[in-house]
Amino acid sequence: MRALRYHGPGDIRLEMDIPEPECRVHQVKICPSFCGICGTDLHVYQSSNSLPFKDTPHPITGEKWPVTLGHEFSGEVVEVGSEVRNGIRVGDRVAVQPTICCNQCVPCKEGLTNCCDSFGFVGLMGWGGGLSDYVCVDARFAFKLPDTIPSDIGALVEPLAVAWHAVALSALKAGDDVLVMGAGPIGLAVIQCLKARQPGQLIVAEVAANRRKFAQQFGATAVIDPREQDVVSTCKLLCDGQGPAMAFDCAGVAASIKSACLATRSGGTVVNVSVWDGDIPFNMNNLLFGEKRLLTALSYTTADFEAVIHALDNGSIDAKDMITRTITIDRVVENGIMALTHHKDRDIKIVVDVAAR
Amino acid sequence: MRALRYHGPGDIRLEMDIPEPECRVHQVKICPSFCGICGTDLHVYQSSNSLPFKDTPHPITGEKWPVTLGHEFSGEVVEVGSEVRNGIRVGDRVAVQPTICCNQCVPCKEGLTNCCDSFGFVGLMGWGGGLSDYVCVDARFAFKLPDTIPSDIGALVEPLAVAWHAVALSALKAGDDVLVMGAGPIGLAVIQCLKARQPGQLIVAEVAANRRKFAQQFGATAVIDPREQDVVSTCKLLCDGQGPAMAFDCAGVAASIKSACLATRSGGTVVNVSVWDGDIPFNMNNLLFGEKRLLTALSYTTADFEAVIHALDNGSIDAKDMITRTITIDRVVENGIMALTHHKDRDIKIVVDVAAR
Ligand SMILES: NC(=O)c1ccc[n+]([C@@H]2O[C@H](COP(=O)([O-])OP(=O)(O)OC[C@H]3O[C@@H](n4cnc5c(N)ncnc54)[C@H](O)[C@@H]3O)[C@@H](O)[C@H]2O)c1
Ligand SMILES: NC(=O)c1ccc[n+]([C@@H]2O[C@H](COP(=O)([O-])OP(=O)(O)OC[C@H]3O[C@@H](n4cnc5c(N)ncnc54)[C@H](O)[C@@H]3O)[C@@H](O)[C@H]2O)c1
Ligand SMILES: [Zn+2]
Ligand SMILES: [Zn+2]
Ligand SMILES: [Zn+2]
Ligand SMILES: [Zn+2]
Repeated sequence: MRALRYHGPGDIRLEMDIPEPECRVHQVKICPSFCGICGTDLHVYQSSNSLPFKDTPHPITGEKWPVTLGHEFSGEVVEVGSEVRNGIRVGDRVAVQPTICCNQCVPCKEGLTNCCDSFGFVGLMGWGGGLSDYVCVDARFAFKLPDTIPSDIGALVEPLAVAWHAVALSALKAGDDVLVMGAGPIGLAVIQCLKARQPGQLIVAEVAANRRKFAQQFGATAVIDPREQDVVSTCKLLCDGQGPAMAFDCAGVAASIKSACLATRSGGTVVNVSVWDGDIPFNMNNLLFGEKRLLTALSYTTADFEAVIHALDNGSIDAKDMITRTITIDRVVENGIMALTHHKDRDIKIVVDVAAR
Repeated sequence: MRALRYHGPGDIRLEMDIPEPECRVHQVKICPSFCGICGTDLHVYQSSNSLPFKDTPHPITGEKWPVTLGHEFSGEVVEVGSEVRNGIRVGDRVAVQPTICCNQCVPCKEGLTNCCDSFGFVGLMGWGGGLSDYVCVDARFAFKLPDTIPSDIGALVEPLAVAWHAVALSALKAGDDVLVMGAGPIGLAVIQCLKARQPGQLIVAEVAANRRKFAQQFGATAVIDPREQDVVSTCKLLCDGQGPAMAFDCAGVAASIKSACLATRSGGTVVNVSVWDGDIPFNMNNLLFGEKRLLTALSYTTADFEAVIHALDNGSIDAKDMITRTITIDRVVENGIMALTHHKDRDIKIVVDVAAR
């Protein structure tokens, strides 16, 4: 079968005769339909830091490079293992939760599977991926898509689950004003999930003009260009002189988290969704004076996946405008990874139509 | 009357004929008994940054330098304003909550008086202070001390309230393991308040040997010298391989908050009590990977003051060993501020016996 495999930084190959995976008794075998490309794929293409499994295998999958890519995908079930009991059937369209966890470490046992000591992803750390003709996953990670959700949107469930998880954790109440720093795919997904909770003001700060436009389209009540306007004072002005009750950082730069901390009103909450490259200069007093708290949101759980599918089904999230381009599997590097690297603000989500040739 | 007044950095004067303050109708007039010296007094002595009221008056008190010092004090009521209705009487011994807030800004109206836009302290920003013969305060900020609490211990209610507030906010549950970074007066007060909540392990990291000894005396189940032992791995070892559920930063250096973040188990809470000098290098991933949250605790409210007095009364906090030295008002700079500056770990709390001559 075909599989797009990572052999190391700058070396991604579409290989044509990779053996088909065998469906184990608790698994379903899936033929991927659509698969999103995300910032993690870009990082991995550029450097080996985020995927250090060249020589040491991943502790759970036992695999080293080369690994198949694609962790944001939908597909069709083509085989069901003999011990699968969750009602999933051949022909079902599904979205796949790609997380890998050990189920044995203390975080896993405490229900924090997203904090598993050996946390990983299908499509990055082994067990195949969405950018191939077939992939087998544990049946409890395959979520049936209702007829209302087309398969390309099914590939968005994963990034939406990241956002849903962060918003759920924040416990934002209807009517609360909120600020989102950064309107990349994750920021825009957060905006969608926030919108579903009927906030008061939904302010978005983003440097890229095109992405500010998307933010407005997705429900921002005000957008700020941080190079033109002061984020903190603008937020205070927009929110009864005090600032929003909550701010989400989805930009991941020192300036954005600083603005998030300062803009949030006293007693408020900053939610960090960003993954960081290392140390940044940070002044804890920006939280302390105002007794603000900082939450961090990592990945998602099965409950978030279910909630996103439910929200897409009932229309409280409408994500179709997030897909700005559909490409084929043989052009992932050129039209996907390179396009997102060099024209960052042109696209939101590029999805691969995996079956198309 | 006598008053120890701040005229600027390095310039603190014991003045002998300051006019006695007049007791207004909602106030009580207090003759201070004991008054603690704290890190803030040291900062103020060294630089004008923390008390920028040389030319611009404080927005609430309207006062500029010189101001009377002393914000951690107990005293005896010598006069009660005609409209005071809270039962306080001449002769009562009281601890004074020295906070100044406007009662009009949004944080004040939302009950966050500790986040008041014009927050300040008696004994730093005007309205007199505990290092004088008389001071008048709003009657609701004078808390009657029961017979079980001597007046010198009454001067500790203020720093204990800082700690109580932080511990209350943390919502630590009995049996939870906890780490405290730094065993200065605030760290030791936090240890006392934690002890009252019956934690599991109570681990304390502190560089000064003398302060580690105090930490043990006050209830630490394990102490760590961060120059000799790795805080993070030691904490993991002591707490079922995972680390404590909670860590309090009372040291206020980049290394301490980093250890606090890394040592805390997945899903846990870091509480920042420290006030910072500015930016530090900080890696948000140390919270994100483990989905930990960071709370900040600022000052205290009237409820915390009441709770501390109650805890001292019923013996769940026993603070008398925190007082390591008692001095007179004419020696505050030499035997108080200088002693604490140059022999940091010799003392915990130095209190001034204000009436003694
Ligand atoms: N927590 C999780 O589980 C999780 C999962 C996926 C991604 N992420 C992280 O979420 C973050 C966002 O992901 P993404 O794919 O949307 O990234 P992205 O780079 O596409 O988006 C970031 C956006 O922030 C904007 N930005 C940069 N500086 C800014 C500033 N000062 N103010 C406002 N906006 C600014 C950029 O223009 C960009 O549009 C990344 O850090 C990513 O690693 C986290
Ligand atoms: N949040 C509030 O309302 C509030 C109120 C009062 C004081 N504070 C702050 O609380 C902090 C502590 O106050 P304090 O009076 O106890 O100060 P302190 O300086 O006496 O105590 C700090 C202690 O930390 C120790 N320390 C330094 N580096 C360390 C490290 N890497 N690991 C472990 N310990 C280390 C020092 O040896 C010292 O004993 C200060 O930042 C102070 O400004 C906050
Ligand atoms: Zn992704
Ligand atoms: Zn695990
Ligand atoms: Zn103090
Ligand atoms: Zn106020």
